Amino acid sequence: MTRHHLISFQPSGKRVPTAGRETLLQLAHGAKLPIESVCGGQGTCGKCRILIPLAQGRLLPPTEKEISALGNLIEKGYRLACEMVPASDLTCTIPEASLVSGQVILTSSNCRPSRLKPDIMDFSLEIPPPTLSDPASDLSRLIRAFQKTYGRQVREIDTLAMREIASAVRSQKGRITAFLWKDRELIDVRAGNDEAVFGIAFDIGTTTVVAYLLDLRSGREVSVASAMNPQVPYGDNVISRITYCLEDEKGLEKLRSILLALMNQLIDRLCQKAGIKNSQVLEATVVGNTVMHHLFLGLDPRSIALAPYNPVVRSTGPVKARDLRLHISPSGYVVPLPVKAGFVGGDTIGVVIATNPHRKSAMTLAIDIGTNGEIVLGNRGRLLCCSTAAGPAFEGGHIKWGMRATKGAVEKVEIDPATLNVRIHTIGNRPPLGLCGTGTISVVAALIRARVITSHGSFNPAVSHPRLRPGDGGTEFVLAWAGETGTKNDLVITQQDVAELQLAKGAIRAGITILMKKMGIKKVHRVLLAGAFGTYVEVQDAWTIGLIPSDLCSQVESVGNAAGAGACLALLNRDKQAEAERMAEKMEYVELSVDPDFNELFIDGMLFDAPVPLDKS
Amino acid sequence: MTRHHLISFQPSGKRVPTAGRETLLQLAHGAKLPIESVCGGQGTCGKCRILIPLAQGRLLPPTEKEISALGNLIEKGYRLACEMVPASDLTCTIPEASLVSGQVILTSSNCRPSRLKPDIMDFSLEIPPPTLSDPASDLSRLIRAFQKTYGRQVREIDTLAMREIASAVRSQKGRITAFLWKDRELIDVRAGNDEAVFGIAFDIGTTTVVAYLLDLRSGREVSVASAMNPQVPYGDNVISRITYCLEDEKGLEKLRSILLALMNQLIDRLCQKAGIKNSQVLEATVVGNTVMHHLFLGLDPRSIALAPYNPVVRSTGPVKARDLRLHISPSGYVVPLPVKAGFVGGDTIGVVIATNPHRKSAMTLAIDIGTNGEIVLGNRGRLLCCSTAAGPAFEGGHIKWGMRATKGAVEKVEIDPATLNVRIHTIGNRPPLGLCGTGTISVVAALIRARVITSHGSFNPAVSHPRLRPGDGGTEFVLAWAGETGTKNDLVITQQDVAELQLAKGAIRAGITILMKKMGIKKVHRVLLAGAFGTYVEVQDAWTIGLIPSDLCSQVESVGNAAGAGACLALLNRDKQAEAERMAEKMEYVELSVDPDFNELFIDGMLFDAPVPLDKS
Repeated sequence: MTRHHLISFQPSGKRVPTAGRETLLQLAHGAKLPIESVCGGQGTCGKCRILIPLAQGRLLPPTEKEISALGNLIEKGYRLACEMVPASDLTCTIPEASLVSGQVILTSSNCRPSRLKPDIMDFSLEIPPPTLSDPASDLSRLIRAFQKTYGRQVREIDTLAMREIASAVRSQKGRITAFLWKDRELIDVRAGNDEAVFGIAFDIGTTTVVAYLLDLRSGREVSVASAMNPQVPYGDNVISRITYCLEDEKGLEKLRSILLALMNQLIDRLCQKAGIKNSQVLEATVVGNTVMHHLFLGLDPRSIALAPYNPVVRSTGPVKARDLRLHISPSGYVVPLPVKAGFVGGDTIGVVIATNPHRKSAMTLAIDIGTNGEIVLGNRGRLLCCSTAAGPAFEGGHIKWGMRATKGAVEKVEIDPATLNVRIHTIGNRPPLGLCGTGTISVVAALIRARVITSHGSFNPAVSHPRLRPGDGGTEFVLAWAGETGTKNDLVITQQDVAELQLAKGAIRAGITILMKKMGIKKVHRVLLAGAFGTYVEVQDAWTIGLIPSDLCSQVESVGNAAGAGACLALLNRDKQAEAERMAEKMEYVELSVDPDFNELFIDGMLFDAPVPLDKS
Repeated sequence: MTRHHLISFQPSGKRVPTAGRETLLQLAHGAKLPIESVCGGQGTCGKCRILIPLAQGRLLPPTEKEISALGNLIEKGYRLACEMVPASDLTCTIPEASLVSGQVILTSSNCRPSRLKPDIMDFSLEIPPPTLSDPASDLSRLIRAFQKTYGRQVREIDTLAMREIASAVRSQKGRITAFLWKDRELIDVRAGNDEAVFGIAFDIGTTTVVAYLLDLRSGREVSVASAMNPQVPYGDNVISRITYCLEDEKGLEKLRSILLALMNQLIDRLCQKAGIKNSQVLEATVVGNTVMHHLFLGLDPRSIALAPYNPVVRSTGPVKARDLRLHISPSGYVVPLPVKAGFVGGDTIGVVIATNPHRKSAMTLAIDIGTNGEIVLGNRGRLLCCSTAAGPAFEGGHIKWGMRATKGAVEKVEIDPATLNVRIHTIGNRPPLGLCGTGTISVVAALIRARVITSHGSFNPAVSHPRLRPGDGGTEFVLAWAGETGTKNDLVITQQDVAELQLAKGAIRAGITILMKKMGIKKVHRVLLAGAFGTYVEVQDAWTIGLIPSDLCSQVESVGNAAGAGACLALLNRDKQAEAERMAEKMEYVELSVDPDFNELFIDGMLFDAPVPLDKS
């Protein structure tokens, strides 16, 4: 008989038996303890660190991956939950920073449609009974009443909606409400005057999924729900998700079905909160990057990972909800905003239709920063777009004490240039646990201003201070001492962390430079920062680290979750859907990897005060 | 503990235990013994008669329904299986005539399309690979290749077909076969040159379902399969099926799902026989009366049972196969031919597009006889139609020794007017078991010619012969003595049987007369008899019993299963679908029940040699 060990997880106190085959991460997930794992248990992201008092049972020595990811933290008892298979009874502690919880997800969509013109409109009708001299079908009488009352022609009827007609026309003396999609297809018929009709706009991010419930008659946002993308354990970025699909023949269906299950949960949650039935939601719009778009639709994403990175399908048009198994009304429609290219997705198209660069003569630069940074440049005459692989640094990834933007994450620091005293602001005003993306930028910007970091990104060897010390990743700067933090460890930023940020911003800078070169301009009228990052980052910090060239423009605006706003607008105004299709067609995609100057520009862009060589070519 | 009895069924010898709660019919069906039951166990059709030797166990006395259905047969040991709940061990014999087996189902569709123009066509394409300078999506490249190679524009793509593109364009150097529906929607994409494409035409009758597998590239009929409609146990006619839906709130879904299950079995059987995959069948057409049309589509049929008998929907247009759960390719289409009225269905429309009265100047009368008789009259200028409730007599129902057209059924008799000697022809040359519809007509016609039956339908009191004798349903004529039959009983036709036939033919005659009156004509150029009955009945007999007025026309033609032929034609030529829609629109429906002369004409029509009072009104 196999001997079972007992694993006790602190601080929750949950106890889990194991036969010694599963990792601590698997055991914790099985016990519903949401330990973070952005790499999906590959031992690379270092996010699932747990604390194991050293004097316990039979511990296997740390693996190479643990040594690489944790460095000297191992001496303090940290291990990676995804690497440890316990061989004896064990008590371990899950630090708060390792828990997936309460992430700040940008949900406000800033959605103000200029005009309400949804795909679906409700019509009250009175259907006369049939007679022996005119035994017309229920549907024929409905179509005639429509024509007579509203002067409109019903051209099609949904197969499932057809089944509702007989009882609807009989239950309230022929008074019904009919719902017409795009002025032509009857997609719902209800007895009496039940005019309520709703829509849901989805923003499927690589990391988070946000859903907005909108009342299509008033345009009002009824409620918002969001959650982590459940695909995260299968890879923290789009390329690792594609790799998962390539390695497992059922990978695509698995990624699609867990995403779908989450979206259906969000629908249920929104409908329960609003006190409505799922069947009253008759349309959903969806924005997402191209890989999310493909995974949601069940399209094989592998071509996106290989040159020339083309998608399988750019525009699908509306799809019946039942064909995608999305639990709004089965007769309703799902409208995925079109994608432009393998790395310029429906989210970028959403940013465009929400911020309207193509409707203005002023030259606009819009940057949506995430793991990939999508950049759009242009005006009424011409629109260019590109995508740069910024990497995870802006989202707290690959940073030693990096974390998502949850409670305890440092979001802003002030450093006195004279004393190097540090003042830290965290989300939720907690003792600091780590650095989120904006926090990392704030720290680096403050250190640049304090001349602790040079233009090349290295710590200034001329500075001597107790906070600046050698660490296992090169020199590091101590932001908070162990006694001040929530982890009881010194909170530091390392030379390697600064380099990660340089890589990320260098990619963005190179993208901006190449687009401006293609457009033949040196200045723009406005710069828009979109996405969670764009909302929370201090413009001054973005300038200081040189994310935006300092001489580019004085007007920098944060536009919040513009991609989600685009999805909401497309739901409320069908002209916006058409506009999205036109923009996906018209916008010119620039493939950075084929630009001969890219590598040089990338390296130049990593510098912190390098002048942008606009006139190079 | 409940005591179990043992029931032994002969001649199969199957033994079934029972706790005494189920009827013999239920027990037999549970044991897969296919006892006939057209009324669904209501005790009214008398088809489930079984033989129980009298000296057995504790037998409950015959019920009123048994006495009414069986008459003096009870003395010979006959009982109704649906009425008997055995209270002791029992041995019973199922007579051959009570078994559902080997019915002659009319499957030949006589289908000769003048032109092959199916909805679905295959196109071979070569898709060039994407390049960095033109990273167009797989779909865009496919659409471009289509445009370039064939000059055609693909406007839509099926959501599921979209998922096939990525692997298809990658597996055989970009060589694919694309399947386009109605020149606009891409519904299937396969790697290489797999051009095979099939369709299935369904003829859903109240009693039988026939399916024809057609090769859409050649128009060839590949194979045919048929089976009893599994809804028969829930009622032998359309009204009793509707009643079942009214009485059981899940009745509609039940009738729909058992029909669907059978249709899917037929699809599987046809595909297996032809060695093809179900996914290669890309379209199905369906004809059926209005109740079958509604039950197949999941539409509530109750309005058809009540004045003014209107359907819920007359025309649905094409429906995705997956939305109906029909197991051809889920991306394929189902095209139900439209219905005209509650009792003029897609089967009648099928007869019209197969026989083309609307394309000729000659005046045509087409009669499709079943439980309901649908009549179409007209030519190029005008088409009228009506439906008459002929009742089950033409299909062997409500006739004492009536049976379906299976082996042993009398299909033709000759009676010598001088000697009244009878010569009997049966299906399969077996000793006679009973009378099918054409047999009943043949017997009555022969007895009229022999002057044994008078113009009023009563047995001639002036005739004295051992074959003519009193029975428990009035006078009866012995067609075969017990020693000559397969049942070891005298095979008779009773006064009541003749009256049933008179009711049936009276209804048809009244319909013909009213249509001719509306059209203002006294003669037609041709009469078409459609359906199984129309195929097998002798034209001379139809004239003798006055089913067709003798002075109407000299050209009577049997057109076989014209409804099924219509379904096949619609599958092979999309113009025929459009024609069906136009005819369903244009044809004028005549409601017989509101005609003030109907009752009088019905009674006149029951006479056997009554002159038709055409000039009455």
